[in-house]
Amino acid sequence: MKPSIPKGTRDFTPEQVSKRNFIFDTIKKVFIKYGYQPIETPVMENLSTLTGKYGEEGDKLLFKVLNNGDFLKKADKQAIADGNSPKLIPSISKRGLRYDLTVPFARFVVMHQNDISFPFKRYQIQPVWRADRPQKGRYQEFYQCDVDVVGSDSLMYEAELVQIYDEVFATLGVNTEIKVNNRKILEGIAEAAGIADQFMDMTIAIDKLDKIGIEGVRKELIGRGIQEAAIDKIEKMLGVTSLTPLKELFVNSPTGLKGIEELEEFQDVKMGSIGGGGRYDDLTGNFGLKNVSGVGVSFGAARIFDVMEELDLFPKERGDSLKLLFVAFDDAAHKYAFNCLNEVRAAGINADLYPSPAKMKKQMKYANDRKVPFVAVIGSNEMEAGKVQLKNMETGEQSLLTVEEVIEQLF
Amino acid sequence: MKPSIPKGTRDFTPEQVSKRNFIFDTIKKVFIKYGYQPIETPVMENLSTLTGKYGEEGDKLLFKVLNNGDFLKKADKQAIADGNSPKLIPSISKRGLRYDLTVPFARFVVMHQNDISFPFKRYQIQPVWRADRPQKGRYQEFYQCDVDVVGSDSLMYEAELVQIYDEVFATLGVNTEIKVNNRKILEGIAEAAGIADQFMDMTIAIDKLDKIGIEGVRKELIGRGIQEAAIDKIEKMLGVTSLTPLKELFVNSPTGLKGIEELEEFQDVKMGSIGGGGRYDDLTGNFGLKNVSGVGVSFGAARIFDVMEELDLFPKERGDSLKLLFVAFDDAAHKYAFNCLNEVRAAGINADLYPSPAKMKKQMKYANDRKVPFVAVIGSNEMEAGKVQLKNMETGEQSLLTVEEVIEQLF
Repeated sequence: MKPSIPKGTRDFTPEQVSKRNFIFDTIKKVFIKYGYQPIETPVMENLSTLTGKYGEEGDKLLFKVLNNGDFLKKADKQAIADGNSPKLIPSISKRGLRYDLTVPFARFVVMHQNDISFPFKRYQIQPVWRADRPQKGRYQEFYQCDVDVVGSDSLMYEAELVQIYDEVFATLGVNTEIKVNNRKILEGIAEAAGIADQFMDMTIAIDKLDKIGIEGVRKELIGRGIQEAAIDKIEKMLGVTSLTPLKELFVNSPTGLKGIEELEEFQDVKMGSIGGGGRYDDLTGNFGLKNVSGVGVSFGAARIFDVMEELDLFPKERGDSLKLLFVAFDDAAHKYAFNCLNEVRAAGINADLYPSPAKMKKQMKYANDRKVPFVAVIGSNEMEAGKVQLKNMETGEQSLLTVEEVIEQLF
Repeated sequence: MKPSIPKGTRDFTPEQVSKRNFIFDTIKKVFIKYGYQPIETPVMENLSTLTGKYGEEGDKLLFKVLNNGDFLKKADKQAIADGNSPKLIPSISKRGLRYDLTVPFARFVVMHQNDISFPFKRYQIQPVWRADRPQKGRYQEFYQCDVDVVGSDSLMYEAELVQIYDEVFATLGVNTEIKVNNRKILEGIAEAAGIADQFMDMTIAIDKLDKIGIEGVRKELIGRGIQEAAIDKIEKMLGVTSLTPLKELFVNSPTGLKGIEELEEFQDVKMGSIGGGGRYDDLTGNFGLKNVSGVGVSFGAARIFDVMEELDLFPKERGDSLKLLFVAFDDAAHKYAFNCLNEVRAAGINADLYPSPAKMKKQMKYANDRKVPFVAVIGSNEMEAGKVQLKNMETGEQSLLTVEEVIEQLF
């Protein structure tokens, strides 16, 4: 048989894991510096926890785990007779794979509410599963990387999360521009235009501004039954480039003015570029814990990976790279090399020895495959001198050194 | 509704994740130093990959994932009519959750054989799933931590894996004794006792030596139809405490002598204590790649965790601990504190600020809950002096310091 893996899933090779860990480690270090703590939740959740949280379409995309043992015994006979698969599910499956990290996090907060100190600042980096049709760049199993605060509505955290975004991407060397919004401003626009009751229609149309331009938005607003006069006002407000002119326009909209006040407070943080994030006013209501407000952002690990790969931003040597490979000409040299290897490793250097004194060509091919920057060659001459021949694989430069000198050079 | 998680699964709190990461990070650092590389495989594997690899009992313990969409359409109607759950499975489920890391690793090696440089030294730390009856200390979802070499039968790797074991536990501060065996010695004992054809019976009985003592083993051997004369020889050989006397006893057993030779070579490595590990002569044969030999060891993360917890071996302050919490008396102090916070974080110190100038009692309770070793208190006096009041939470000691001095002290 020829082995394969399920469609939409992936193996990760050493290089891919190493690069992804480089991203995760960078992100985690920032999270930790900002006082966030890690949690992990099980891959399988009860379907009662997951179902109904992601809309009808989401329910279909949940992976369901078949009950173990004689599951047919309790199967819904009528659903089978009707050939009704969705109706049969609850009687043969009670668990599913998590679909995102937010619902499990909300469940976690409710279950552990007595052990948690609020505000609870948590991060979570784990895979999630969705039975989407697999296509280029879209997988059924992929990592999410979430950072959230619950139990406080302080705007400090909005600012902090933007700082985190900024710091993560600066550290990774990825150029980003962060855009910030406040929903109350949108409400202010609707109020100032006198169409507070058509707020949803207005936002759906405005949301397309980048795609269809202002004329397209006007058409869409007309199509949604909004008056020309209101549309003119909206267009004017969309055209402002700072908060000051909005203040006058919002003179009769308390919500809008509150939004401006919040954005102004937020801007106090003074960052080169400020950016986005989301607040939910009721994270845990679904699970019976009311009035827990939260704010959070999410990092798209896969996209960051692709961008960094494309721009060649990954450092060539990472902390988990092999630094030195010993190769030996014969059995005696191999034993000598094994002792040298132990010394080098004891000094904390990532090092290895080819397992046998094979043909030099074969050993050097292995060195190249492993992309190791230094090779220590050992033959009878080196042994007599009590040294090793250290070869820099990039420059080709060689030098006869003691093990101590090698350690000093590579550390 | 009251939320819950599936039986046999666990949430991990920040403290648990932090401690487990301390174990994993220690282990990984050693793996990497010894030249091992990480891989990751998908949580879901095709059932065709998993089924039949773990025995009949194992097949029952596999978690199967229900096919998405209208799975009843292709369901085995006869199996449904017969109420035969196991027979129905292949027609409604084609994927399962991985049961261990070895089978996915073998599959990985076969699928990626053209991109891998052999010997391939890989480590893998990921969860696995088994539908075992949950009980104290036994979970349905748990981490495995495997390190293996494939594509070489050099005994160097046996020695290396024992070194790794030794180094990991020494670093963690866990006292361990490592026991080593060579199956050829057992074969030699059977040959020297003249019962090579009853090898399995002999090993099954000998395996119980620790539990039932030599008399128990004798009884079991008799029960399994082994002659008294052979049993006397076996007892004599089990009694030796070094390899030298075995050499004479094995004079007519080439396998036994080979085993002694291999163990002697192995002991050359000279370690304070040497230990176990397993070799498989045909890792990937199931997936169509013959003659790939491997050797590996596994670390039981959960048990290591429990031992370290029991012996209080986790360091109080870990790299991911919060080092400093700012607390402020009023709004002005809170703004001042936010700026101090940014400076401290910019210096790379894990720090936080309570989100509002709440009652001091509440803020200090939060500091205690987070187990933070230092708190920086800021009121109008501190602001005027351009300093903060740094409190050592363990000793209660306080000192008025500039932010630069705080950074110097905590770094």
